[in-house]
Amino acid sequence: MVPNWKARLDALRTAWQTQGCDACVVGSLTNIHYLTGLQASAGLLVQGMERDWLLLDGRYTTVAHELLAAGALGPVSVEPVPGRYDDGLREVLVGLGARRPAFEGDHTTVSTLARWQGLYPADWHATSGLVEALRLRKDAYELDVLRRAGTLLTGVADRLAAWVAAGRTEREVAADIDRALLQAGFTKPAFDTIVASGPNSARPHARSGERRLASGDLVVLDFGGVLDGYCVDLTRVAAVGPVSPEAEALYDAVRRAHSAALGTVRAGVPAERVDAAARQVLEKEGLGAAFVHGTGHGLGLEVHEAPRVSRLSPPDEVLDAGMVCTVEPGAYVPGLGGARLEDDVVVTDKGAEQLTTASRDLIRV
Amino acid sequence: MVPNWKARLDALRTAWQTQGCDACVVGSLTNIHYLTGLQASAGLLVQGMERDWLLLDGRYTTVAHELLAAGALGPVSVEPVPGRYDDGLREVLVGLGARRPAFEGDHTTVSTLARWQGLYPADWHATSGLVEALRLRKDAYELDVLRRAGTLLTGVADRLAAWVAAGRTEREVAADIDRALLQAGFTKPAFDTIVASGPNSARPHARSGERRLASGDLVVLDFGGVLDGYCVDLTRVAAVGPVSPEAEALYDAVRRAHSAALGTVRAGVPAERVDAAARQVLEKEGLGAAFVHGTGHGLGLEVHEAPRVSRLSPPDEVLDAGMVCTVEPGAYVPGLGGARLEDDVVVTDKGAEQLTTASRDLIRV
Repeated sequence: MVPNWKARLDALRTAWQTQGCDACVVGSLTNIHYLTGLQASAGLLVQGMERDWLLLDGRYTTVAHELLAAGALGPVSVEPVPGRYDDGLREVLVGLGARRPAFEGDHTTVSTLARWQGLYPADWHATSGLVEALRLRKDAYELDVLRRAGTLLTGVADRLAAWVAAGRTEREVAADIDRALLQAGFTKPAFDTIVASGPNSARPHARSGERRLASGDLVVLDFGGVLDGYCVDLTRVAAVGPVSPEAEALYDAVRRAHSAALGTVRAGVPAERVDAAARQVLEKEGLGAAFVHGTGHGLGLEVHEAPRVSRLSPPDEVLDAGMVCTVEPGAYVPGLGGARLEDDVVVTDKGAEQLTTASRDLIRV
Repeated sequence: MVPNWKARLDALRTAWQTQGCDACVVGSLTNIHYLTGLQASAGLLVQGMERDWLLLDGRYTTVAHELLAAGALGPVSVEPVPGRYDDGLREVLVGLGARRPAFEGDHTTVSTLARWQGLYPADWHATSGLVEALRLRKDAYELDVLRRAGTLLTGVADRLAAWVAAGRTEREVAADIDRALLQAGFTKPAFDTIVASGPNSARPHARSGERRLASGDLVVLDFGGVLDGYCVDLTRVAAVGPVSPEAEALYDAVRRAHSAALGTVRAGVPAERVDAAARQVLEKEGLGAAFVHGTGHGLGLEVHEAPRVSRLSPPDEVLDAGMVCTVEPGAYVPGLGGARLEDDVVVTDKGAEQLTTASRDLIRV
């Protein structure tokens, strides 16, 4: 199974044509990956009315030609740039005679636009979110990858109890998780693995440090993996030895908030309503102020992408079938500790299809 | 030893004041890290004529206050933003009465600038590279970290022969390297570790894949680590069993190019001259076209930063004492294989201080 790059490229072409443009420059490397299959650390995609050019420097032209030959690259002309990308870009735009080139306003810096305007004076038109709109609903290829990734991540999560123990450092536990992610088949962790223990658990984006786990700790374990370019993300909580009744109650509240949010996910539901479902549970327990982040974020080629599942989501941000997101309420109380429970779901007409299914019980070690 | 954040903040303030500005908004998270010590995935730094504000959302305010209390954060006012960063930004700018706020043209997208102009109409002024200019010459704190990091990376490189073997996959070797990086004390790999074997070695930015190493292969091993936020980066080449005389000659040429470049590094020398020294050696061997990238890049909080050591470096880009960069010529010949040799150096008045010192012999396994 390979992605239908031609359909993606053509959908983007239609989108900017609708805005009166006659060419388009894509500079976001994630969007280039989505549109062509090429993962590179530099490159530009230029769309004309009928053809697409992928500008690459010498480091990537060989691999691009190999991918083309193997049918693993979208239908683009690979154009080597001898030196500066700007020179290659001007050449293609001159060839096209573009009068109103579209560019990605969300990814193009003010400096870059000024440079492009200088090298190719034209009616440059800022677009916003055109490729992201295509990426929002995952296609069959993407859902297949994400389902496999969710199964692998569940497998790693099921082994957490083996690594969490009093006396070990957060960093040691994180290294075990990272090793397991690679062994499971992930290309790499999706982000720096978080193991936040005891007082650190009350810091929602703590890093893993040299603190040693101790009896009475809550330990937040937040990690993810990248498979075939796609990210999955999961959080579980462990208790080292007996924890206080307040900590037990905190975890229980977060778990109920997680269930409430999960039960609200369905095509047609505004994203903010999913957040509200989780928030309501925590507010009822007096933990509203302790829930300092949103309930979830989209997943795909990036570990944070649309949709945002938050009280800040505009009312017209509505979940739709094929969207993939996390559900991850949390509560953080300095002096007591913190908890977060996170799973990944596909939005369907019937509700949430769960990609990650590891046990949600507090992990007792 | 902690960085002198106040000196860094004041140096930036002077830089934008010189451009007639009365405030400055820093959005680059790497630059915020450099200026304040805070590593976060979101945040804004606002400088007024006399004070600095760090705008953070709920995920980071606790950690920021802890860092402040521990003396591990620069002298900034931590300002929690309840919801959107835009609201917090407007509030601070209104409080300052800023008329000509500076912003980072190289990091601010066209969309973000349009939003800021809408929420706070003023004479917004694009600056370029102000913080990067400060980051270019490393201070005593940074050199101390980079020296320690270079020693650790040398230790990992010295063990490569233990992991490279016929029959193993590239990915397995990469996993060993990644594990060793963490064991050595690095926070994480500085980038996706590259193990490129046989035909893949001729692809300068190949990834590690499922190919099994085989007798006769050249294997390019390119990896790095992050220590206290700072990146180091190294490449060595292994030969699996006997390799062809042409492959031996290729490696020998790259090694001589590496020596030539290393011998050219010194404060006062244009960066392009270091590149030319390496290129000359390879051109003499008929490998000029096979050297498809520049000779080096700066290192610091980012694994690729200024200065660029390339034939594309402008003649006025001159190496100066305290700059830190890689020296990494390579040659890539489809059908034969590739080689790259990379070390990290500090530019001094006397020449290159070598941060990485692992043996540069072809690693024979």
